[in-house]
Amino acid sequence: MQRLYVVGIGAGDPDQVTIQAVKAINKIDTFIVIGKGVEKQELLDVRTAILGEHAHQQFQVIELPDPPRDRRPGDYPGTVDRWHAERAERVAKLFDDIDGVGGILVWGDPALYDSTLRVVERSRFSGEVVVIPGVTAVSALCARHGIVLNRIGESVLITTARKLREGWDGTDAVVMLDADCAFLDLPDDVQIWWGAYLGMPDEMLFSGRVGDVGAQIKAARDEARARKGWIMDIYLLRG
Amino acid sequence: MQRLYVVGIGAGDPDQVTIQAVKAINKIDTFIVIGKGVEKQELLDVRTAILGEHAHQQFQVIELPDPPRDRRPGDYPGTVDRWHAERAERVAKLFDDIDGVGGILVWGDPALYDSTLRVVERSRFSGEVVVIPGVTAVSALCARHGIVLNRIGESVLITTARKLREGWDGTDAVVMLDADCAFLDLPDDVQIWWGAYLGMPDEMLFSGRVGDVGAQIKAARDEARARKGWIMDIYLLRG
Repeated sequence: MQRLYVVGIGAGDPDQVTIQAVKAINKIDTFIVIGKGVEKQELLDVRTAILGEHAHQQFQVIELPDPPRDRRPGDYPGTVDRWHAERAERVAKLFDDIDGVGGILVWGDPALYDSTLRVVERSRFSGEVVVIPGVTAVSALCARHGIVLNRIGESVLITTARKLREGWDGTDAVVMLDADCAFLDLPDDVQIWWGAYLGMPDEMLFSGRVGDVGAQIKAARDEARARKGWIMDIYLLRG
Repeated sequence: MQRLYVVGIGAGDPDQVTIQAVKAINKIDTFIVIGKGVEKQELLDVRTAILGEHAHQQFQVIELPDPPRDRRPGDYPGTVDRWHAERAERVAKLFDDIDGVGGILVWGDPALYDSTLRVVERSRFSGEVVVIPGVTAVSALCARHGIVLNRIGESVLITTARKLREGWDGTDAVVMLDADCAFLDLPDDVQIWWGAYLGMPDEMLFSGRVGDVGAQIKAARDEARARKGWIMDIYLLRG
């Protein structure tokens, strides 16, 4: 493999792909899916729709399952590190075996809370890596709520639920990777703009004071997650 | 005007426009350009290229000059606010005069350090507003440097040079709107990934320790700005 495209394909709406991404997709001989089984059918369907509509060349898809992972290791950092190393080895071997141009499609943007570029770096791939930026879930969230992310001249923190639980200084914050509705522990007066399945048929949007809409969000989130088996959500907080 | 599209068109590369944006562009009868004269010829050329390639219907373009603005006011928020109010009045009058579907094309994403949505809100337009998210300059910067914005599990602050000068707690930070190379006042060991004219023919990229590349960036930036008459740049800092 001489070249690898890492292509952001937007937050869930197949039409959120860019012309730049479409052009890259049409240069890719082999699409590599790392971590088969991680993604749900609806997400695979979006990706299939994008390739079906925009890929006009012959291509193959190779799925590379992740190595088995000890979910409750005694030595957590060491175990995670060995797991990443093992995955990087498998990826390196696959890259060696592939002829021509490879590509990896990434939800949202490869720069935001996605591990693909780190895996590629660890694989020590010596060919050219071209990154195509995509529309982030952050932008999709703001668009659907019709809001501007930042207040005039102010900063915005992009963070995770784990960091939010460690403490929040009140800076406007976008929270990702929240499995447990960390916002419920915030003061009632904090404003939240929440979205799930953005750009997809089951899109859900809530906004208001945490005290007013927090419990509603949790109930709707729990119901959707149970019904569909997965959820992708994100929110903006203003103190 | 019954409906207004506010369309993110990406950070400077005409191919960074999304399919969703192209579809919206094809529904727009009147493109409104707020702030004629602010943009340089090369930026206008990118926008013209996007319309030339993707708009297949008949459309008109109406340019609405901005009211005059004090660029270095003592009372920053207040001055900006009054200026926005005056602009909103002009916009409201224009919206009233337009028939059919209107559209405003926005650099990057309408949610990030762009005033269009605030102007629209202040104009009290009573029709439907549809926001189409775009690829941000933040994503474009990371893509061109081949880096991930956030470190594993860590937060990232999106901020302005003005806020950076007020103080920085060392959180990884993307800095926008820096007219005076605020990074030069940071410790030498801070890492910087800097980019200007991202996705355009004159794109410039520098990365390294501020102590090693800071002066180089300033020199290259000053030269380009003098030669071209304008600059659009952005950078990521890691302490």
